[in-house]
Amino acid sequence: MAKTKTEKPVILITNDDGISAPGIKALVEAALPFGKVVVVAPDKPQSGMGHAITIGHHLRLQKVHYMEGVEAYSCSGTPVDCVKLAVDKVLHRKPTICLSGINHGANHSINVIYSGTMSAALEASIESIPSIGFSLLDLSIEADFTAAKHFAAIIIEKVLSDKKLDKHLCLNVNFPKVATNLIKGIKICKQAYAKYEEKFVERVDPHGKKYYWLTGEFKNFDKSKDTDVWALKNNYVSVVPVQFDLTNHALKTQLSKKWKW
Amino acid sequence: MAKTKTEKPVILITNDDGISAPGIKALVEAALPFGKVVVVAPDKPQSGMGHAITIGHHLRLQKVHYMEGVEAYSCSGTPVDCVKLAVDKVLHRKPTICLSGINHGANHSINVIYSGTMSAALEASIESIPSIGFSLLDLSIEADFTAAKHFAAIIIEKVLSDKKLDKHLCLNVNFPKVATNLIKGIKICKQAYAKYEEKFVERVDPHGKKYYWLTGEFKNFDKSKDTDVWALKNNYVSVVPVQFDLTNHALKTQLSKKWKW
Repeated sequence: MAKTKTEKPVILITNDDGISAPGIKALVEAALPFGKVVVVAPDKPQSGMGHAITIGHHLRLQKVHYMEGVEAYSCSGTPVDCVKLAVDKVLHRKPTICLSGINHGANHSINVIYSGTMSAALEASIESIPSIGFSLLDLSIEADFTAAKHFAAIIIEKVLSDKKLDKHLCLNVNFPKVATNLIKGIKICKQAYAKYEEKFVERVDPHGKKYYWLTGEFKNFDKSKDTDVWALKNNYVSVVPVQFDLTNHALKTQLSKKWKW
Repeated sequence: MAKTKTEKPVILITNDDGISAPGIKALVEAALPFGKVVVVAPDKPQSGMGHAITIGHHLRLQKVHYMEGVEAYSCSGTPVDCVKLAVDKVLHRKPTICLSGINHGANHSINVIYSGTMSAALEASIESIPSIGFSLLDLSIEADFTAAKHFAAIIIEKVLSDKKLDKHLCLNVNFPKVATNLIKGIKICKQAYAKYEEKFVERVDPHGKKYYWLTGEFKNFDKSKDTDVWALKNNYVSVVPVQFDLTNHALKTQLSKKWKW
């Protein structure tokens, strides 16, 4: 978008918990002082949808009454669909910035890859729209977003005021589940090497057939102190710059030398 | 898996086009000479599902008759669910290697991020299972997998015979749509910076309500010659080593210096 000096930033907001989640309301409130807010968010929960897009079905877009001064739409698709549809059919141009969240639950470490919230943010950055995904380490529908809102506003302001912003900037921001006064600050981090060890729970239906529920235990294998997991454990807000280039460049160099065909 | 010298490699195979797709059959045939093959694949097409996992629903797993000497199961979930469920409930241990595909259609450049085929491979690598995702640049159900099978076998053998393999190795392999004798060789590449420019097709249902179909035009912005897009255009098989650490390390260093809170 060619932004003139007098034009207010256009802020696109989405999430993966769905348009009625308290977390996205908190993010809209945090973002409102900074520009014109447009919400395009899923019409139902889309947690764990990763970077899924809808190609075998059509999509619906529904204008909804949301909040005074906020244009809002619910979308039948995934978080990534929401970003694509917002740019093409709602805004008809790129917004200044795309915000996603505030997610009910952590998206640090490996969660970034499963998270619809973060995939929406990453999709924006693919489209050269700087983006931030926000998540609070509290899954509850009753989660207290006070501290998250406070620090989200600080980070939004920092990004919007940076005149030399990377056009593919994408930040994965996580907030610890503590009160504002207990948060020690904001730390730029790397993604911790941590994963879930799956344990599917097996059940039997009334017809005698087995079915399975995905559950898992979180294991952090990363002992370094510049990770998002470390920062959050020590009551910092973690900020990980993420990218959509998945190339393992070190391995590319190594395999090019090692493997002869 | 602790593999003894006499034990055959255990090869887990999945895909995103579904267990009945010709592409996965081609991959099973290519892999069979190298070990014990177990198939756990989606019971329906799951293209474009990215790294989605199923958390709000249960999963079903159904043993199916597939091919002589091949144990096979269809799964109601996403490609990533298939890998998780296969390790926990079918194999009860990690396979030697996980193969995904052969996908009907390209997964080079940015496609890696939307692809269920590649997300299954990436999920395996998160679980320390070396993995390879294979894709043919031909969307057709009638696609000719002859050349793809030939080169897939070469790559599978190379990976299985490498004694110093990175446990998180994940390769994104794409085959050009040409006959075996026209393929110039195999190239280790980086992911091209290319993307889709979305154009949603708007239609109106019989009740007068709008709906949208996602379509897009592929645009390659990357002029370098070590990309997967370049290799494929020049009739090479492209091999991109990919990773699940999404941290933009250069930006992490830059922002740590630039931004004071």
